[in-house]
Formats: sequence, C-alpha cells, structure tokens
Amino acid sequence: MIIIMERNATKENIKTVMDLLKEHGFRAILHEGEVHTVIDALGDKTTLSFNRIEALDGVSQVKPVRSPFRLASRDRKEEDTIIEFDNGVKIGGKNRPVFMVGPCSVEDDYEGLLKVAVAAKEMGCQFLRGGAFKPRTSPYDFDGLGEKALKYLYKAKQETGLLVVTELMDASDLDLVCEYADLIQIGARNMQNFRLLKAVGKCNKPVVLKRGPANSITEFLLAAEHIMYNGNEQVVLCERGIKGFDSSYTRNVMDISAIPVIRKYSHLPIIADPSHGTGQRYLIEPMSKAALVVGADGIMVEVHHDPSKALSDGKQSLSIDEFKRVFSKLNKLIDILKLENIGQYAPFEQV
Amino acid sequence: MIIIMERNATKENIKTVMDLLKEHGFRAILHEGEVHTVIDALGDKTTLSFNRIEALDGVSQVKPVRSPFRLASRDRKEEDTIIEFDNGVKIGGKNRPVFMVGPCSVEDDYEGLLKVAVAAKEMGCQFLRGGAFKPRTSPYDFDGLGEKALKYLYKAKQETGLLVVTELMDASDLDLVCEYADLIQIGARNMQNFRLLKAVGKCNKPVVLKRGPANSITEFLLAAEHIMYNGNEQVVLCERGIKGFDSSYTRNVMDISAIPVIRKYSHLPIIADPSHGTGQRYLIEPMSKAALVVGADGIMVEVHHDPSKALSDGKQSLSIDEFKRVFSKLNKLIDILKLENIGQYAPFEQV
Amino acid sequence: MIIIMERNATKENIKTVMDLLKEHGFRAILHEGEVHTVIDALGDKTTLSFNRIEALDGVSQVKPVRSPFRLASRDRKEEDTIIEFDNGVKIGGKNRPVFMVGPCSVEDDYEGLLKVAVAAKEMGCQFLRGGAFKPRTSPYDFDGLGEKALKYLYKAKQETGLLVVTELMDASDLDLVCEYADLIQIGARNMQNFRLLKAVGKCNKPVVLKRGPANSITEFLLAAEHIMYNGNEQVVLCERGIKGFDSSYTRNVMDISAIPVIRKYSHLPIIADPSHGTGQRYLIEPMSKAALVVGADGIMVEVHHDPSKALSDGKQSLSIDEFKRVFSKLNKLIDILKLENIGQYAPFEQV
Amino acid sequence: MIIIMERNATKENIKTVMDLLKEHGFRAILHEGEVHTVIDALGDKTTLSFNRIEALDGVSQVKPVRSPFRLASRDRKEEDTIIEFDNGVKIGGKNRPVFMVGPCSVEDDYEGLLKVAVAAKEMGCQFLRGGAFKPRTSPYDFDGLGEKALKYLYKAKQETGLLVVTELMDASDLDLVCEYADLIQIGARNMQNFRLLKAVGKCNKPVVLKRGPANSITEFLLAAEHIMYNGNEQVVLCERGIKGFDSSYTRNVMDISAIPVIRKYSHLPIIADPSHGTGQRYLIEPMSKAALVVGADGIMVEVHHDPSKALSDGKQSLSIDEFKRVFSKLNKLIDILKLENIGQYAPFEQV
Repeated sequence: MIIIMERNATKENIKTVMDLLKEHGFRAILHEGEVHTVIDALGDKTTLSFNRIEALDGVSQVKPVRSPFRLASRDRKEEDTIIEFDNGVKIGGKNRPVFMVGPCSVEDDYEGLLKVAVAAKEMGCQFLRGGAFKPRTSPYDFDGLGEKALKYLYKAKQETGLLVVTELMDASDLDLVCEYADLIQIGARNMQNFRLLKAVGKCNKPVVLKRGPANSITEFLLAAEHIMYNGNEQVVLCERGIKGFDSSYTRNVMDISAIPVIRKYSHLPIIADPSHGTGQRYLIEPMSKAALVVGADGIMVEVHHDPSKALSDGKQSLSIDEFKRVFSKLNKLIDILKLENIGQYAPFEQV
Repeated sequence: MIIIMERNATKENIKTVMDLLKEHGFRAILHEGEVHTVIDALGDKTTLSFNRIEALDGVSQVKPVRSPFRLASRDRKEEDTIIEFDNGVKIGGKNRPVFMVGPCSVEDDYEGLLKVAVAAKEMGCQFLRGGAFKPRTSPYDFDGLGEKALKYLYKAKQETGLLVVTELMDASDLDLVCEYADLIQIGARNMQNFRLLKAVGKCNKPVVLKRGPANSITEFLLAAEHIMYNGNEQVVLCERGIKGFDSSYTRNVMDISAIPVIRKYSHLPIIADPSHGTGQRYLIEPMSKAALVVGADGIMVEVHHDPSKALSDGKQSLSIDEFKRVFSKLNKLIDILKLENIGQYAPFEQV
Repeated sequence: MIIIMERNATKENIKTVMDLLKEHGFRAILHEGEVHTVIDALGDKTTLSFNRIEALDGVSQVKPVRSPFRLASRDRKEEDTIIEFDNGVKIGGKNRPVFMVGPCSVEDDYEGLLKVAVAAKEMGCQFLRGGAFKPRTSPYDFDGLGEKALKYLYKAKQETGLLVVTELMDASDLDLVCEYADLIQIGARNMQNFRLLKAVGKCNKPVVLKRGPANSITEFLLAAEHIMYNGNEQVVLCERGIKGFDSSYTRNVMDISAIPVIRKYSHLPIIADPSHGTGQRYLIEPMSKAALVVGADGIMVEVHHDPSKALSDGKQSLSIDEFKRVFSKLNKLIDILKLENIGQYAPFEQV
Repeated sequence: MIIIMERNATKENIKTVMDLLKEHGFRAILHEGEVHTVIDALGDKTTLSFNRIEALDGVSQVKPVRSPFRLASRDRKEEDTIIEFDNGVKIGGKNRPVFMVGPCSVEDDYEGLLKVAVAAKEMGCQFLRGGAFKPRTSPYDFDGLGEKALKYLYKAKQETGLLVVTELMDASDLDLVCEYADLIQIGARNMQNFRLLKAVGKCNKPVVLKRGPANSITEFLLAAEHIMYNGNEQVVLCERGIKGFDSSYTRNVMDISAIPVIRKYSHLPIIADPSHGTGQRYLIEPMSKAALVVGADGIMVEVHHDPSKALSDGKQSLSIDEFKRVFSKLNKLIDILKLENIGQYAPFEQV
C-alpha cells in the first residue's frame, strides 16, 4: 500500500507509521518529497489493516496497490473457474451459457410449477428456480411456502431432470435447503450478511451470490471472498441491477459492464438476472441478449405459468408463451455467437 | 390505491382489474377518461398486493395513496413513542437527547474500555456502545471478540451504571446478546435481514435499527414495521449516512433531513451516528450539532481510548480528550436550545 | 393529473383546488373517499403547472398520468423518426446502425486526424467526430483548438466523404459550427443548458444530444423536447453513461436498458457512446455489442492515431489497429442480427 | 502524482513513462517493488495531465497527491476570503451569516415583490433574490420575465437598500445582468457550463456558484477555480442538495457535511439553500439551522408573498408570515451561537 502523509506531518508522525509497519513485518520505503512524504509499504494486509494506519496522526491517505480480494482474483488463478454438477451441467469457462428459470416464489400450486419446469426443459434450460423463503420489504407481503416449496421443487426436478436453485435466507435453514437444492442462492439483500456467507462457505454445495443493489464490484468480490475463505470455492456471481437515481422506468439499473469487468478481474463465473435487473417484462429479452454478448455465463429469468396471478414479481415475469418466444431467440443468438466467434466465448482476447 | 390503465387497455382488461378488486373486498370506483381510465380502490392491501395488480394486462401504473408502513406511522399514533429503561433513562418525545458512545469493536483490553466508560459517565452519557460481533466487508479484517466482549461491556455497566448497546448479527446469538445488552443494535447491512428483524421482533428488548446505506426512508420504516409487526414496538431508528456518488471526502452522505422527515411521518424516536455518517473525526462535532438542531433524539459516536491503535474505525473515532471537548459543547447546545425554545423540543410546531 | 388531498384537508382547501382547475379550463372530477379525497383533472398542463397545485394548502401529492414530453413521445408519433443527410446516410428506424468515430479533441496534427478518418471510411463508418471546443472539469486542461479544429474536420470530410459531428458549447459559436458540421453535438454537461437547446432548436441542422450523467430519462426527453419545441425535430439521443456510486472500475455506469426504454417511449433515434460510458478501452467492444443487440441506432467511439499521446481521453480511445479489429466484429454482429432477425431491427415486436 | 504500473509492465513501458515525465520537467523517482513498480512524480500538472499518463501502456493507475484545485484551496490561502459589497455587507470569515430571500421567479407583480423585500429588510436580510431568467426542465413551464424582472429587483433595491442577487444563464446577458445585480448567481445546472464560468470570471462582480446536483466537491471547487483562474476571486459557493436514490420525501439530499468539508479545504465562503436542498417548506427551518450550526456563511431561501399563486417553486417557498416566524428563530440561533461560542464562528478550532 501507499501511505501519503499530510503536508504538515511531523518527523515523529512519520516515525510512528514506519515503526508500526516494521512491527507488522512490512517492508516500508520512505520518500520524503518537497511537499509530501510518501511511504511505500509491502506486506501482509491481514496483519495490519488500512484502518489502523489511517487513524494515525499525520496520515492523509492510504491507497491500496493490490485488490483486496485474493481468492476471487484472476491474479491468483488465471483460468476460469468451472462449476460442475452431478448431471454433467457446467457453469463458466467456455461452456454454453446456462439458463435458470422459474417463478419468483413457489406457490401452492404444483401443477403450475410443473408447467414452467416442463417448458424450461423443452427450451434447453438447466435449472429450475423458485423461492421457498422470500425476503419481503413489507411484512404484509407473501413470504414463501417454506419447506413445502422445497418439496415441490424437488418433485419437479425428479420429473424433468432440471437442477434446483433456491434462496437461503438464514443459516439455520442450511441443512434443509441443502437437502433439496443443487445450487444455493444468496439474495441481494443478504450479500453482506456475513454469518450467512460463512455458513455457505462451510458447506459443499455451489452457491450463486447476487450483487447487493448498492454494492461496489469490490464489495461484491469481497463477499465471494468470504465464502471462499471459509472453504467453498464454488461461487457463481449474479449481476441483478444496482440502485440508480431514477426508478420511473426500471426498478434498478442493470450494470451490464460489470460482467466484462468481473471477467477481467476474477475467475469466477458470472450470470445475469434481467427480471430483477429491470423489473419490466418487456426488457427481459433485450437485456438478456446484452448480457450474453458481453460474456455472461448464464441468465436467470422469472417465468410464471400465469403472471397475472403471481403472488410476487408478476410484472417482471414472463408467461410460458413469452418465455418460449424469448428463449428461442436467446438460443439462436448463442448458437450464432459461437459459430461466428464474435462474442461470449472469448470476450477479452480481442482488444 | 389508484390504478391507471394503459391508453389502449381493453374493456376486458378493465373488467379483470375490477373483478379482482371486488373479489378481495375492495371498493373500486371507475373513472373512464378521454385518454386514460383510472380506478380508485379502497381496501385492505394485506389481502391484495400492488404486484398482483401491476402484473395484469392493460395496467400502466399502480399508485399508493397511503404509506405502506402502518404501525410505524404517525397516522396511527400521533404522540411520540418514548422508550424507557429500567434505570429511568428515556429516549424520544420531549426528553433530553441521549448519548451513546464507545469503541467500534470491544477489544481485548478491559482497562481501555473502562476509561471510555468512565469518561462517558462523567460527560452525562447514558449508553456504552461497543461491537462484540462485527460485520466486515473483507474476511481478512478483525470481526470481534464475541462473548468475551459482551462480558466486558456488562462489567463496565456494573462499574459505571451506563446502559449497554451492542450489535446482533444473527438470530442464533439473540439469547446471548439479550443476557448482556439493554438495547440491541441491528446494523445497517442487516436492515433488510428479515429473519433477524423477526427474531428481535419477538423479544422484549428495545432495538436500535440502523438505516441501510442505500435504503429509502420508506424501506427504513418498513424494516421497523417488520420488528413491530412481530410484537416489539420499542424501536429506535438511527440515521448513519447513505451512499453517495463521491467518497473522496466523506465515507457516506449523512442525510440530516431524514431526521425531521421521519419525525413528521413516524412516531418512533430517531438518533444519528455521525461517526459512520461521515467517516471523519473532524466532522463529528459539526454533524452532531446539525442532528441535534433538527430534532434528533440522540447521538451515537465512536470513542476509543487510543484511536491510533483501534482495530477498527480509528479514523472516525474520537479520543477521550476530544470526546470531552466535543460533548461539553453538545451539552451546552442542548441546554441553550431548550432554554430558548428554538430547537429540538418542538421542531414541527413552528412552520 | 391526479391530485391527492391531505387526510385533514378542509372543504375550503378542496374548493380552492377545484376553482383553480376550472379557472384554467380543466375538467375536474372529485372523489371524496373515506380517508382521502382525490381529484382527477384533465386539461392543458401548459396553462397550469404541477407546481401551482402542489403549493396549495391541503394538497398532499400531484401525480401525472401522461408523460411530460409530447413532441418526443411515441404517443404523438408512432413511427420512428429517421434523420437523413445530404449524402443519403440515415439514422433511425430500420436503417443499419451508424458509426461515429474520431479523436476526443482534434489536435494540431492534421495527418493524425486524416489517418483516423481514412480508417473510419474503410471500416464503413459514416461520421468523423472530434472536439473543437472542449468542456474541461479543470481550467488547467486542454480545451480545444477552436476554429482550426473545425477546418481540419472539414478538410478530412472533403478527403473521405465522412460527415462531421462536433460539439457546440455556446450559442455564440452556432454559426461557426454550422458552417463546418453536419451534425451538432450537445454535450452531457450542457444537456440542461436551456439557452443552448433553444439556439440549436432554431437552426436546421440535426443535433445529437448526450444524456447528462445524472439526468433521468424523463429529463433527457424533456431536453430533446426543448429543441423540438423551438422548431428542430432532427434530434438523435445518445446514452453515454450515468453517475454511479462506484468509479473504481468504470468512469460511469452505462445504462444499456435506457436504449430499449427510450425506443418504447420515444420515436427519436438513440445511439450509444461506450468510450464515455465506461472510460475503459477494453470495454468498448463488449459494450458496443450490448448497445447494438438492444437496438441502438448507432455507436460513437473515440479513436486516436496514437492514444498514448492523446491530449484528452487517451485511456478510453482505441488505436487505429484496435478500432479495425473491434469494428470488423461489430459489422459482423450487425450483419448476423439482420440476417437472423434476432436483434436490433425489431426489438419490441417480440414480446 | 503517484503512478502505479501494471504487474506485467515491461521495462520499456516504464521507460516510456519516465521519459514523458522528464520531457515535461517532472522530477520522477522510480521504486521497483517485488510486485508493482511505482513512480513518484513531482511537477506542474498544467503541462502534463493524468490522461496522457493513464493512456500509456503498462500504466495501471495514476493517483493525485495534491488537490486539483489551487486558487480555491486553503493550501494556497489560509485565511478566509471575505467578500465586501458597496454598502458594507460582508460574506465569509467571522462575519454574521447573511440571508438572501425572495421569490423563485420575479413575477409581473411589483407590489408582491416589494412586500417580500420590505419584510426581508425588517428581518435583517441583506439580499433580495429573484429569477429573471429561469432554467426550466420542461419547455412548457414559465421561464422568467427577463429584463423587466431585473428592473423590478433594482427598484426594490432602491426602496429597501437590499442588495440584488439573480441568475445569469447565458454569457450574452452578462452586461445586462451586471447593470442591475450586485451578486451574480450561476445555477446548479450551469455549474459546468465552462463558457459561462469564463465569462463571469472576466467580470468584476461577486458570483454565487451553486453546486450541481450530481457534482462532487472536487468538481464544485474546480468550477470555482474556472472563475478564479479567469480573474475573479470573489466567489461564494452554495450547497443546494444533491441527487439521491429516493425522491419520495425530499427533492434532493441536502449535503450538510459539504459545508464543514469545504470550509476545511477551501477559503471561499459557503452558503446553503434549503429551499432547493429539500423542496419542502416544512424543512426550511430545521435545515437552515443545521447549515448555520455547521458553519454556513449564509442562507438562501425562497419567500413568496403568496406561495399558492407562485409561478414556480411554490411548494418550497415560505409565505411572508412563515418567513418572519422562521427567520426570527434563525436570528436568535445565530445570536446564541455567537454569545456562547459554540458554533458557526470557529467550527474547526474545536477538534
């Protein structure tokens, strides 16, 4: 890290910083400038945090040189992480992007869910998604069927062969969710619920981690780092829209460039969720395409057998007919990008 | 709520909406305009959510007329909520603003903590704050002493008579934290951890709920609503800075106007945390004053016996000497505002 | 518009609102609810603004039913606006997306500019872009060559047949800029410089209007409305990134979904500028592709004959070689999308 | 500045950077680390911008050590700038905070304006504000009376002795505005209209510069720098609210901490505008108090003789009666802060 001292820092201030650095095994080089004194320090940040140094008298700024995430960084692991499931489905690398579809919440209507699952299988999707435990901004909204929903998902899996992805909201439900799910989702509002990250870090199921709506890319990768640091390296990232200053037309601003940025700085796979990213049914098709051409490893979309009756998120869900129309186009786009070698499969070799 | 139909909505679309409303016991009045058709609907939103209606064909927008929070609203309860502790300390209403001070994290140095507690008592503070479980953006940062910290806080309480406030990060620690704390803090990153809100809603300790850095005032009050809905009406709100587009000078943007806004729309007490709100030691004094003159019911500030050695948040902590200088000014300001009747005690009678 | 009265509005308050509406020729319908009174008002908002009504006692909220922009709205004009230039080039509708490339600022090196222009022509671009007058955040930065730059651009046009697009910063330069340019650019920082909008509204050259980095889509379309209202309907919109909360990886957040949103609500053509949108050279290719698949009518990219020597924006400019590699891919993508009918040409018929 | 090279930067990359720095007279010191190479460079940034260096191959980041504004910086001039008017009124330093009040737009009703001016004089205000030229988001809104308004303001000045402050929207009106105004306002939307900044930089009237709603503090001070660099050092800054993610309760987020931050880093006076900062009449009193206790050098508030009939901004204007009630409280607050030496007059000596 680089430590910039205040213009009027005393010799003593500088000595205190240098001593602290040495005490923690850092190699520190002092550059006394005409205006500012600057210290370059090389060492293990786990033993001495920025905070400690910033709080010292006479210190103006502490600037990182290396990214604060390590396990998630491409610096540590150059090749793409590929996550493989029992049935051979793979996410990441040069594999065909995966599709995860299903209702926002699993409702008490197994036939409805099965209709979606059957259509999903038909369109080449690999995952059935659906909420059993739902985080809701208001206590007056439907918050999920719980275990019953997990059972419905599992039943639909047995009938269609689709893998199951569902959200875990609390560490105390981990065993239950693991019993039924193939991929555990950590929702956007829980991206910095560190206890939950620790819990899924200690289990051996793949995790899909959604970006918090007001979290930076660094915070996002550090949340993945929490999971990896606790032992689970099977993390799929998911961009699902960030908070903007205008929500008249879309619920969030879908940060499409986060996808190529993350592919550059991290080896973890990244997928996109245009349902939450935009909150608008008519934007699912264009934004899915956008995510795919910039290199997303998959798409997660809300599909409901009857959106007008959905207990949650109907406005951003596709009906089964719409889903088929949209996804046949997405499949075609993927085929072409691959054939022509103009997209997705090698986004960073080109420039 | 008011439902605005699309310009080209069909008669059938309109009928579907009207039928759904009637089915759920709403009184719906139809206004067929020349350009748009508008439906006014009055009824119990708990039985039929916006989402359901928005998802219907032909519906352009659904606009609320009443605020979505109820228990937290001044519409339901005009007089200020006052929270009273065993030792007679009160938060809210026309009571003197309270002070909550202490280190960001409790460290393994009881003497240091006690020094802060003794100074706090001397300056008229009512609460000792300190983290036992710390949420950390990076897994490489210090994350708290756990139960040992709780014991230190409790011991300092016995020596000074200060009440203890500390953060709860996970429902599984609730019993432990309740044993030692007088006021349970829900941190900003957990503001929408609904399981945690439910858990503290079911206990009978007062809760201080910090605003999430990217959460609107409505979302903030709905988070309080989750706690109240589950049975606990002793909620203190805390403004602690929101995410801005520029973090060069301050860590967050402290939303001072949120304090009078919340006092207008809710009966719950609201305090301010200028340490997290600004991230800068030199801003604690002016921003504490700002919070007090607009009507804050209290101030929470990080104080450390040696900020340059703090394991977390040293940059935004006051030393004991600084704390004494600043808080003697804050006490003087409160005295004067009260005497002259120009502030704090009746902020909304005036215009 | 819909006017919602306060819960405790008096009969007199309501009468004042009704009288004002009638006085201005509005048709107002009163709905006295059990809790709230709501007034539906239909009339010409040009004679009575929201502000007037909102300021009345007892009024809680005034909510628009129709969009505030009219000339720019698809409600007024269903078919896409197509802008045609003397040489037959067309922007908008089902025409092939156009490319506008060139250096951020025109520098005092005509040969360098010509190299870019020749390469642009070769790759099928239609426009040469380059700044003669540069808005600069700091007064110490290079602010353009002025008229000399305009002459260079014009000379390059004569040699290559490319059309010229350049920024107008002040109404007093309008005649000068019109002499040399085919398309006048209004920069992001001037999006709400209403005098400038009025000035270009009164001239008969097409205008490309860049979205302000913190302006909503409604404000963006209202800025276009200013130009159209003053007589010039040849407006091309340009998405170039909005302000986010994190600028560690990208200069702005490129709001890709704004493209399909604007295509839905407005008939005006919309292009994208990934150079400013991201500020990163390596993101130009993926983000150009994203813009094209969601329906952009063109792409504007900074290309410099030697980015490492550029006086401005070198970091987000492509070299000539990179430009050729990237644009051959973009051309291929456009060809395929057209052939397969999976993109761009009819983005909203599909769902 | 500090230049951090990419991990895989070649010796040649490093040499190119060093050569460029030397060519421009910089003193450059090279630190070859084990992981990263870092270059400290000291020199005149006016001759070589960040952009040039950032665009070089192998450069990862360029980090400033000194603030980019100079004339506006306290580093250059430690004592507060005080702006003095012909009638002895002073803004800045330890002078009593000034009050600027008046209608948003001057309307065609001189008697109404005079009523406000007389009340303003009575309450000890120093300035009468009012718009003659109004920037309006929509072309359908009232955009000012023009010169007639300037004449009304001037007439009211002659009757009351108040100084006149009014907005300049275009350089071509400069002479006209200078004829009537004592203090020229540059509006928030024009904060980065560099031609306008240059124009007022070349005149000898004091300028009040409003912060753009999405501009950082550095951009704000650089806008002031543009004026100062062109010769006019009489600049008053004005905080008037920044864009947030939620506009349900307030139009903007008033950035109160910007006031003490700017007082720390700049010697220029800074005032606050709670009318625009909040957009809500009931927030003018508390937010004016907040601005005063953190050290604002003045308050600008919209006052209208009949807000319910105001052609613009009625919702955020005080009536004359409300104005008198609020400002008598503000006067009292200022008196007390001064007497007790707990606020305003020495905000930074304390910690």
